Amino acid sequence: MFLFHYLCCKTDLRAMTTDQFRLETCFSPAIYQKHADDENIVVVVDIFRATSAICTAFHNHVKKIIPVSTVDEAKQKKMEGYLVASERDGYVLDFADFGNSPFNFTDKMVRGKEIVYSTTNGTRCIHMASHSRAVVVGSFLNLTALSEWLSGQQSPVLIFCASWKDRFSLEDAVFAGALAQKLLSSGRFFSVCDAVTASVDLWQLAKNNLNEYMMKVAQKERLAAKGLDDCIDFCLTTDYTQVIPIWKNGELVSL
Amino acid sequence: MFLFHYLCCKTDLRAMTTDQFRLETCFSPAIYQKHADDENIVVVVDIFRATSAICTAFHNHVKKIIPVSTVDEAKQKKMEGYLVASERDGYVLDFADFGNSPFNFTDKMVRGKEIVYSTTNGTRCIHMASHSRAVVVGSFLNLTALSEWLSGQQSPVLIFCASWKDRFSLEDAVFAGALAQKLLSSGRFFSVCDAVTASVDLWQLAKNNLNEYMMKVAQKERLAAKGLDDCIDFCLTTDYTQVIPIWKNGELVSL
Repeated sequence: MFLFHYLCCKTDLRAMTTDQFRLETCFSPAIYQKHADDENIVVVVDIFRATSAICTAFHNHVKKIIPVSTVDEAKQKKMEGYLVASERDGYVLDFADFGNSPFNFTDKMVRGKEIVYSTTNGTRCIHMASHSRAVVVGSFLNLTALSEWLSGQQSPVLIFCASWKDRFSLEDAVFAGALAQKLLSSGRFFSVCDAVTASVDLWQLAKNNLNEYMMKVAQKERLAAKGLDDCIDFCLTTDYTQVIPIWKNGELVSL
Repeated sequence: MFLFHYLCCKTDLRAMTTDQFRLETCFSPAIYQKHADDENIVVVVDIFRATSAICTAFHNHVKKIIPVSTVDEAKQKKMEGYLVASERDGYVLDFADFGNSPFNFTDKMVRGKEIVYSTTNGTRCIHMASHSRAVVVGSFLNLTALSEWLSGQQSPVLIFCASWKDRFSLEDAVFAGALAQKLLSSGRFFSVCDAVTASVDLWQLAKNNLNEYMMKVAQKERLAAKGLDDCIDFCLTTDYTQVIPIWKNGELVSL
């Protein structure tokens, strides 16, 4: 009883008798404040498509990405001469150079460049979590590299699903399960979080045929309705890259 | 494309070519406003233990239950002569007649009585949803009766998980899946909600050995730490009763 209570307390980051650290998952920005802790390393997840695109950009040697929250900020940065990736609800804004698709972030387009990035959900989550010990960007593309790095950090981890308009998103939850399973398997983490448990169970259901499982995700249909679903299979590619984008001084850089 | 967009619009309650109505699930009060719609019938779910206890009370012929949000309101009602069920974080408050356990609501204790009920999560959700077409109380105890009634109502349905301190709760999600599966099987509902999809998948995993699956739920451990887990198995009893508690004029009554 006492041990369990100890594990549950918000301020207790370590299990009492081991070197394990707390692992939690947050399914929506609307719930984020219940999980917020300055000691956390926060993994922001927006599989379709923001965090997959950001990982692709760093794989292709972008110098840095500056996430901005509003269209006005993105427009201002465009006038300052930046390349700007900006969309709302999946549509590229007229002043922007490109939108969210990872296919836009080719080596030719981004190598050595500084890019301003404004998206509906992902950017907002990065900003919300910026008080934390570290904020990193997760996707299937960098799953193993990310899990190995997290396992060596001696810090509690929160997997933060960007979701869609604050609602639960299945694709982000399934990725959260894939990452949580790797972290729990490392022996470096404990969890008393139902969102972790559910996400691991969803990953178990999905993992043997991930692309087929993802056919039932609502966001896939939303993207298809706008002709933006061509990158779905790519976003589900596991371990395409070793990069770990990390938030430093208001910018994302490669770790 | 057009059909899908039509189904997705918040104000579109019916599918275009059928008599199906929208089914959604909300995993946390923090997300509720994203699902709120005056046309909804809302099913409030707090399996461990509020909504299980309320169903038990109506099974045992309570006359009505008055949910209150604050301890002060509960205390005031006690002074007015009501029987009061009131707890915070699982502990019965000193002025109250009893707490949340369904075992308190025996025929002998509640038949014909008016009971004031104050709980951490369940009451709050009932009040949040009170703008809706109807608010009813769901649990495994009244699963089939509830699903059959909902299928005849010609109205969109939102399954509203009370959760624990706004966080995702696995036991409420699994029940949401059990109810959603019945509703979708009836042919009267459609869903483009990832929370519905996830909850149905979790129910599929849990249903063949529900009690064992629920062993990993965090709330079970929280209750056990306070010696309040004796009712867990009872709360997982499917179709113990036919009652459907419904919100009318600030009170819960039997439908």
